Amino acid sequence: MNPVSAAPLEVLRARTSEKWTEHPPDVLPMFVAEMDYPLAEPIRTALHAAVDRGDTGYVSSSNPVFGAFRGFASRRWAWDLEDASFLSTADVSMGIVEILRAVTKPGDRVVITEPVYAPFFDLVTEAGASVLAIPLAESTQTGTTQRRLDFDALESAFRDGARAFLLCNPHNPLGLVHTREDLEAVARLAAAYSVTVVSDEIHAPLTQPGSTFTPYLSVSDDARATGFAVHSASKAWNIAGLKCAVIVGQGEQSAEVMAALPIEVSWRTGQFGVLAGVAAYSEGEAWLDGVLASIAANIDLLDQLLAEHLPGVTWTRPNAGYLAWLDFRALGWGDDPADVILREARVALSAGVDFGEHGAGYARLNLACSPDLLTDAVTRIAQISRQN
Amino acid sequence: MNPVSAAPLEVLRARTSEKWTEHPPDVLPMFVAEMDYPLAEPIRTALHAAVDRGDTGYVSSSNPVFGAFRGFASRRWAWDLEDASFLSTADVSMGIVEILRAVTKPGDRVVITEPVYAPFFDLVTEAGASVLAIPLAESTQTGTTQRRLDFDALESAFRDGARAFLLCNPHNPLGLVHTREDLEAVARLAAAYSVTVVSDEIHAPLTQPGSTFTPYLSVSDDARATGFAVHSASKAWNIAGLKCAVIVGQGEQSAEVMAALPIEVSWRTGQFGVLAGVAAYSEGEAWLDGVLASIAANIDLLDQLLAEHLPGVTWTRPNAGYLAWLDFRALGWGDDPADVILREARVALSAGVDFGEHGAGYARLNLACSPDLLTDAVTRIAQISRQN
Ligand SMILES: Cc1ncc(COP(=O)(O)O)c(C=O)c1O
Ligand SMILES: Cc1ncc(COP(=O)(O)O)c(C=O)c1O
Repeated sequence: MNPVSAAPLEVLRARTSEKWTEHPPDVLPMFVAEMDYPLAEPIRTALHAAVDRGDTGYVSSSNPVFGAFRGFASRRWAWDLEDASFLSTADVSMGIVEILRAVTKPGDRVVITEPVYAPFFDLVTEAGASVLAIPLAESTQTGTTQRRLDFDALESAFRDGARAFLLCNPHNPLGLVHTREDLEAVARLAAAYSVTVVSDEIHAPLTQPGSTFTPYLSVSDDARATGFAVHSASKAWNIAGLKCAVIVGQGEQSAEVMAALPIEVSWRTGQFGVLAGVAAYSEGEAWLDGVLASIAANIDLLDQLLAEHLPGVTWTRPNAGYLAWLDFRALGWGDDPADVILREARVALSAGVDFGEHGAGYARLNLACSPDLLTDAVTRIAQISRQN
Repeated sequence: MNPVSAAPLEVLRARTSEKWTEHPPDVLPMFVAEMDYPLAEPIRTALHAAVDRGDTGYVSSSNPVFGAFRGFASRRWAWDLEDASFLSTADVSMGIVEILRAVTKPGDRVVITEPVYAPFFDLVTEAGASVLAIPLAESTQTGTTQRRLDFDALESAFRDGARAFLLCNPHNPLGLVHTREDLEAVARLAAAYSVTVVSDEIHAPLTQPGSTFTPYLSVSDDARATGFAVHSASKAWNIAGLKCAVIVGQGEQSAEVMAALPIEVSWRTGQFGVLAGVAAYSEGEAWLDGVLASIAANIDLLDQLLAEHLPGVTWTRPNAGYLAWLDFRALGWGDDPADVILREARVALSAGVDFGEHGAGYARLNLACSPDLLTDAVTRIAQISRQN
């Protein structure tokens, strides 16, 4: 298995996506969740061929991404999707909004567990529901903070009438891979209180070899009865701009909800997202394993760099994904260290406060980049720390 | 100006989009609005380069498609968009839904003028509003039927409380290019009854040289005060699968509505849709003119073929787009001639009934194909007509 190296900086600077255009060139962009690796070869090949044959029309109603995903889920997670219902749409966010819109009434409460992927707040609101943000439970052992779902808080939210739970599995920004036991407990509570669970599993393929991702729907009949999962190749293969996500249901009730979604929801799927998704799921595992190795190496590197240059900054190493949730509170840079860091170190991180109240004093760093860039970023940030 | 030829049949059969996968290979696909031409060279070049640099992340918040569209609109239609507001989203349909959702309350009536692009019925419903379909006015002169907006019916719908009008400009399936005078009249009525007009202008670049497309917002202050236009390069350059549409507002009130749309609506834009859209609008006019010439030749050809082989079928030649609205009523094939034609001639047309009540007995034929395919299709249909 070959680690995948980041593309050269001059190639990255020629990219026109959000990561490489939001800030002027003196800023190191380590915010939005795009990776700096070149595309996987099977995806490149599929897309070049599609351009050559002008295959840019509407997605086929017999969408091939479902079969490719089913194969991947079976090989990678032993998740049997033979009898599942599938629906595609433009992206994971849209899948979440449409399911929430279907299962809630205006104003219904939807639980999210913060700190969490900032747009979750917007997605619940867009669906017409209201956000009930409850913090993850924290425990500190031998200096590092462990977080997990807070079942007492979840149960009381469900008991008080919350209608849905938007689960982040694995959990961004922590790279937290929920255990099977925890997911079983979620499903039991959801069944007991008739709460719909929407499990956002976009980071699942990026689970590190030492951890085990558990598909929410795979844990129990309770989970399948009213749960949904939303998947996409977009994060793991860096194709968010091509627009394809897959909504999965395994129970009768979920199948009915999916069948009743507005017909146009599926037409919004991107044709290149489908073609790239098929290539990713059916031929992209070697590349994915290479990327996971590069990410693991960068996690180690960041750990060393922080210990050496920024010992006041603490973090918990992620078990999935390429995002590092950094606690800057000991440095006294206020609630929004990302703002200080952008201004003084010219490194763009994501502001912790956007991830919920408990993000104050934190920032999120995207480490899917070259080791050089990562080193440069931490060194720059350490510079301010020495000046202050 | 060089006419653009359709791609060879073996290339088309390798396409995986809806047009080329929905039916078995013995069926000639002339239904969904995808064209059989190869991609414009500037689009091919832009997409190949984007694949090579892995430029598949999120669309930049300083979206370059707005500037490119502004230039195209100015050159092509003398439409000055210097002070306009722009917002991008996945496709025209989504732009329509999000605007309608914003300007109507659940159950509010939205007017559409049938026969019209079938999904308009779904889009209004998806937005939570209810469809008020009023027929286009018809007049027959020297054997051909002319259709236009019915202002008496529009006014009484507006007077009775309809909140919005979803205008198809140019009008699919008729290829009807509304006159400036008619659009001015729409704007006057809209202003008088405080009705929001959403003008779907996806077919505008496909207006034939002999006709003049008028952007709805350009006609008057009344139009700009509460109107919106939705544009995309998707239809004219055949890139519907790449997912980019542009919502345009030119009044203060429209700008406010657009600014208040859920933030995720823009994130749904496809990055390749943007890159292809920029190439189309800024470097794709020569190709577009070539395609318009090929379409014009096929319109002539269809006219001859019908006269020769299917004299019972009448139609009005379209002034925009590549869709032919064919009246099969004289042949006695019932309300859904497309069904008969699919079964007996193995040619897939779009069912007229889907376009509204007044579509019974009609079918829509997509003539953006090779002259050979068009000839084959009409010949096959004529065969049934001889047998019956
Ligand atoms: C947890 C999570 N969900 C959803 C998204 C967005 O996915 P999409 O672009 O498919 O809407 C992200 C992006 O980083 C994410 O981290
Ligand atoms: C009038 C009209 N509006 C909208 C669309 C669909 O556009 P999009 O794919 O951008 O949603 C079409 C497609 O043919 C159309 O004819």
